[in-house]
Amino acid sequence: MNPVTLKQIAETLDISIATVSKALKDYPDVSKKTKLLVKETAELLNYKPNAFAVNLRTKESKTIGLIIPEVVHHFFSSVIKGIIARAEKKGYLVIILQSSESYEMEKKQLDLLLSKRVDGILMSLANGTANFKHLDDLISQEVPLVMFDKIAKIVNCSKVIINDRMAAYTATKYLIDSGCKRIAHFRGPLLPQNSIDRFLGYKKALSDNNIPYDPSLVYICECGERSFEEGKENAHKLLEDHNDVDGIFINTDLVAIGAITEFHRIGVKIPEDISIVGFSNWFMSSVISPTLTTIDQPGYEMGKEAFKLLYKEIKRRKENLPIKFKTVELETKLIKRASTRN
Amino acid sequence: MNPVTLKQIAETLDISIATVSKALKDYPDVSKKTKLLVKETAELLNYKPNAFAVNLRTKESKTIGLIIPEVVHHFFSSVIKGIIARAEKKGYLVIILQSSESYEMEKKQLDLLLSKRVDGILMSLANGTANFKHLDDLISQEVPLVMFDKIAKIVNCSKVIINDRMAAYTATKYLIDSGCKRIAHFRGPLLPQNSIDRFLGYKKALSDNNIPYDPSLVYICECGERSFEEGKENAHKLLEDHNDVDGIFINTDLVAIGAITEFHRIGVKIPEDISIVGFSNWFMSSVISPTLTTIDQPGYEMGKEAFKLLYKEIKRRKENLPIKFKTVELETKLIKRASTRN
Repeated sequence: MNPVTLKQIAETLDISIATVSKALKDYPDVSKKTKLLVKETAELLNYKPNAFAVNLRTKESKTIGLIIPEVVHHFFSSVIKGIIARAEKKGYLVIILQSSESYEMEKKQLDLLLSKRVDGILMSLANGTANFKHLDDLISQEVPLVMFDKIAKIVNCSKVIINDRMAAYTATKYLIDSGCKRIAHFRGPLLPQNSIDRFLGYKKALSDNNIPYDPSLVYICECGERSFEEGKENAHKLLEDHNDVDGIFINTDLVAIGAITEFHRIGVKIPEDISIVGFSNWFMSSVISPTLTTIDQPGYEMGKEAFKLLYKEIKRRKENLPIKFKTVELETKLIKRASTRN
Repeated sequence: MNPVTLKQIAETLDISIATVSKALKDYPDVSKKTKLLVKETAELLNYKPNAFAVNLRTKESKTIGLIIPEVVHHFFSSVIKGIIARAEKKGYLVIILQSSESYEMEKKQLDLLLSKRVDGILMSLANGTANFKHLDDLISQEVPLVMFDKIAKIVNCSKVIINDRMAAYTATKYLIDSGCKRIAHFRGPLLPQNSIDRFLGYKKALSDNNIPYDPSLVYICECGERSFEEGKENAHKLLEDHNDVDGIFINTDLVAIGAITEFHRIGVKIPEDISIVGFSNWFMSSVISPTLTTIDQPGYEMGKEAFKLLYKEIKRRKENLPIKFKTVELETKLIKRASTRN
């Protein structure tokens, strides 16, 4: 289906295109009745041009949209909490949509949020998203947008991120400092920037410490629904492939917990035989045994910061002030626990 | 602010009340232009009567609303997954709102969902909700509504539940059968029906097995953000108050994991000294040590079933077929693990 044009609206209502355009832009020389009629028709026909962004800006809904890959995920859950906490303070309600890591779903949900007239959008990309036209379109319509965590560097909007590369470097360096010499990496999927960055941080720490990089020590996880099972499977494969590994840096805690479970089952001692560092600091990691050394990712702070940036942008656009996009980088922290040697 | 009346809409547009009423009901003797105008005005004035339900039924948005107390919660997360899985198959998008256990928030969010013209609403009550007028209003407006898990028995709509009382009975009986004679209960908050029912199931199992009920063995948890800490604190208090307890039935797994952590810290052996049964079967419960015996609550199934009932109601209302409300009770299962004696 082709996008609806001003002409179609004009024909539907039997008025001129100029009147339609003026009505959508709230020109004073168009009657209130005509404006209402044009706007309702535009909505019925699902007309979505720049003009709608104007509408978004002038007629506040006090509602923002949030698109995340997975609701059922420790890290994103914390982000949601942070967003809601701050949004409530400012009188905003948050509509949460889950892309289930699908690009198609992500696009549908952006359209839905626009049709529901949210004042702005917060989002973290699906793993399946490799094309950013839907986001560029949004930005050209001047819809306030802030990306967080899983972002696209080339999309021109405000962002809240962590330094995944540096955090992964710290994690791997800690394994090296504790005496590990053959360190494996369970990495995330190939596309998302954060899993690439964590892998690169791991690699850099090895090379800075004169440990040769061995690609056969890197195992890929999808890190979706099967994270825990992937951790068990990779741990099993790793022992079959290599009998000299003494440390693993793992892309996400749930995978690490799978690995610990498998090692426990087959009698590999942690950290005596193999040390493990995870990533994200899931709550669970503090109650399993041994407790998991990991990188704390400030999800709650990230949510608060993302809302703060979005709120500023909504306000500035409303007042027709110039917008400067900003990237906020939040600090991560190594949490030392019992899965590594001191 | 008083609710907006048909009269106000009529005065705003300078037309008769009858025309407004007819326009809202899509009568054929009102022109298309007038209908559009009336509906847009009604929306602008935030008019929310039965007529809007008619609109909801005739003009599908293929979007449903979901209100849950907490997004960041193992059980509700599984429910969300189940709802989304089935909704996607039927081409519906799901707007998720979190009431944060607040009655005021729950009311606001219902209004928001109506204003966003969802085709129907799924909800689980906030702990703070003791008055159900907002739900009765919704039902009298003929908005399709299905409640799940935390429901109000007196609200007249379809529901998906488990038998909390029977499940709690099974859990307590299992402790008795494994040899426990002094069984404590960490219960949930006072208001919600499910925490009352679990408490009653515990009490009934004791009395059916000639174990005297001792109210000093019952500890209350809010089961919100501090669940884990509450479990630790209650475990600590329990040991101070009673030195003869040999079993605990705990309202929710996260509280039970807190208790296990505290017992572990002070050297109480599980299950040798004290046996523990939780409720909900959180993923975490299968990886901590000892693994936790618990009641499996079918969250994913509950989500799927709730959407199924809602979808049926949406369809039947659209076709003007009579609606029969239905309550579906899903089965729970005792998961025997290492925190109890065989």
